Amino acid sequence: MKFSVTVTLKKDVLDPQGKVVQNTLFNLGLKNLKNIRQGKYFEIEINEQDEKKAENMINEMCQKLLVNLIIEDYQINKLQ
Amino acid sequence: MKFSVTVTLKKDVLDPQGKVVQNTLFNLGLKNLKNIRQGKYFEIEINEQDEKKAENMINEMCQKLLVNLIIEDYQINKLQ
Repeated sequence: MKFSVTVTLKKDVLDPQGKVVQNTLFNLGLKNLKNIRQGKYFEIEINEQDEKKAENMINEMCQKLLVNLIIEDYQINKLQ
Repeated sequence: MKFSVTVTLKKDVLDPQGKVVQNTLFNLGLKNLKNIRQGKYFEIEINEQDEKKAENMINEMCQKLLVNLIIEDYQINKLQ
């Protein structure tokens, strides 16, 4: 089973990397840009046929390693 | 208008960062993991009401800065 995980900074957390990208795009001439925030993306394949169990495993991965729950949110989607 | 952009390494490109994450998860006891690949994620808000024009702008941003087209693919989604 294949899942995608999207990790984003929480709303109130400053995103300096996103700001740099935003300024650079502005300097490249893209003046209509309002806001840009950067996050992480994972594509995870696991050997588990039961969807419920698989999602629990993905959750465990996020909480143990992939996501810093203090400053980040995450969202899991099933692919295909 | 708000869009998300997901940037992933092309299939045949090695992903050393993903491999490290995979090994670490394996060592944490998650033995069912088959494969994990890491990518980037952007949330972009722009001042443009026309959807077609907005999408063209996002495409331009990707090609000019956000994506290395030689080794990466990207996908644009409209949010909300």
